[in-house]
Amino acid sequence: MCQLLGMNCNVPTDICFSFEGFSARGGKTDHHSDGWGIAFFEGKGCRLFLDEKPSITSPIAELVRCYAIHSTHVIAHIRKATQGEVALHNCHPFRRELWGRYWVFAHNGNLPEFEPENMGFYQAVGNTDSEKAFCMMLETLREQFPEGKPTLDKLYSVLRKVTDKLALLGIFNYLLSDGEHFFAYCSTKLSYIVRQAPFAAAHLIDQDMTVDFREVTTERDRVAVIATTPLTDNEVWTQIQPGELLVFQDGLPLKYAFT
Amino acid sequence: MCQLLGMNCNVPTDICFSFEGFSARGGKTDHHSDGWGIAFFEGKGCRLFLDEKPSITSPIAELVRCYAIHSTHVIAHIRKATQGEVALHNCHPFRRELWGRYWVFAHNGNLPEFEPENMGFYQAVGNTDSEKAFCMMLETLREQFPEGKPTLDKLYSVLRKVTDKLALLGIFNYLLSDGEHFFAYCSTKLSYIVRQAPFAAAHLIDQDMTVDFREVTTERDRVAVIATTPLTDNEVWTQIQPGELLVFQDGLPLKYAFT
Repeated sequence: MCQLLGMNCNVPTDICFSFEGFSARGGKTDHHSDGWGIAFFEGKGCRLFLDEKPSITSPIAELVRCYAIHSTHVIAHIRKATQGEVALHNCHPFRRELWGRYWVFAHNGNLPEFEPENMGFYQAVGNTDSEKAFCMMLETLREQFPEGKPTLDKLYSVLRKVTDKLALLGIFNYLLSDGEHFFAYCSTKLSYIVRQAPFAAAHLIDQDMTVDFREVTTERDRVAVIATTPLTDNEVWTQIQPGELLVFQDGLPLKYAFT
Repeated sequence: MCQLLGMNCNVPTDICFSFEGFSARGGKTDHHSDGWGIAFFEGKGCRLFLDEKPSITSPIAELVRCYAIHSTHVIAHIRKATQGEVALHNCHPFRRELWGRYWVFAHNGNLPEFEPENMGFYQAVGNTDSEKAFCMMLETLREQFPEGKPTLDKLYSVLRKVTDKLALLGIFNYLLSDGEHFFAYCSTKLSYIVRQAPFAAAHLIDQDMTVDFREVTTERDRVAVIATTPLTDNEVWTQIQPGELLVFQDGLPLKYAFT
């Protein structure tokens, strides 16, 4: 049913290690081989790589594994199709512009019988429940805040409501970011880890690969990696509780409660 | 001041040969080295590769040169910055969704003092005249046809008007496509060639490379390549006249006149 991978950090960092493990689940160690995608924010800019080929065989995924793109906000997805055929237009993450920023979204789950009305602004290009849900979320945000992006507490409040509404319809784990804020919602299954000093070595589950983060970081670095299931077998990951909508900033989940 | 490259064909075709020559102009044979991008339509899906690094050194451009992606509608761009700093968010082509389709746009030129009002739907993420013009064009189309994509003649009529308005402000050569229709506007400089049976060999100007198209095509294939200046030195290219807005379909410019 797809898997999600996200990264949020306080300094631009590459995701090659995590993506190496994650992309193996797209056809090698697991069956999420109906396409994949990854989006990197660099300032206001956003690079989006997509392919309907499995991540384990896609030459574009091979480039992403090898070419270190540094970013503070990354969202990736490997697809196991539930709704919508295997095709480029149905690959996540999806991207739209709102308030003069790019917004990127990826979903793990299924919203059966989800047929929203066409709200007028954003329309799905493909035929996944995921893209339709994303369109609805952005539509709602735009309607509520027509003048521009609000403060985080107001944004969170509206996002929370539309998330709750959608989560009632099925399984709705997601990652959402505009390169400034990073949201992770656990409907059923999502975990994260924060890596910071003192760093240590990490070993992937899906590839026999270890990185000693002490060699590639500074004392000030902090990186949160969010994934459907843990990517490493020698670290302690935190399970996000079902119903929790977390906001990550500078490599940490924000601690204060939003209403 | 940037260069444009486009391809429209009747069967999905790769653009590797043309892109090999074109991307050399991004830092090797010419100075359009302030970023580049290329968009490929595959059905309703759209792949967009962007980099602020010069196309001649970008590893992503190297992938695009080597990995044959087949498409019927392709738009590419190499940048020599006039307005807006060198950054990912200012690289063309730009992409937005309208009427449930992705629209892609790239511009060669300069619209000095172009500061459109914020029309409410689409806002530029970056600060180029090009992206602002694209937003205005899509905004206008959306306002005129709120129910959905109109027939080509109606679409063309509105596109023609907003193009004329923008072209008064400066230099406005552009390529625009939604994967179904392909528009090429010549403000000052744009050429094209149609390759069809009987095919022949073509030799690039910017790289010492020849392809014999008889070896890689069938009798039925037809490919139009549109570029700011010709890419080959042994073929006859057609110069588009300033003020002409052409519609390409199945590898040919449509012959009947639009009003």
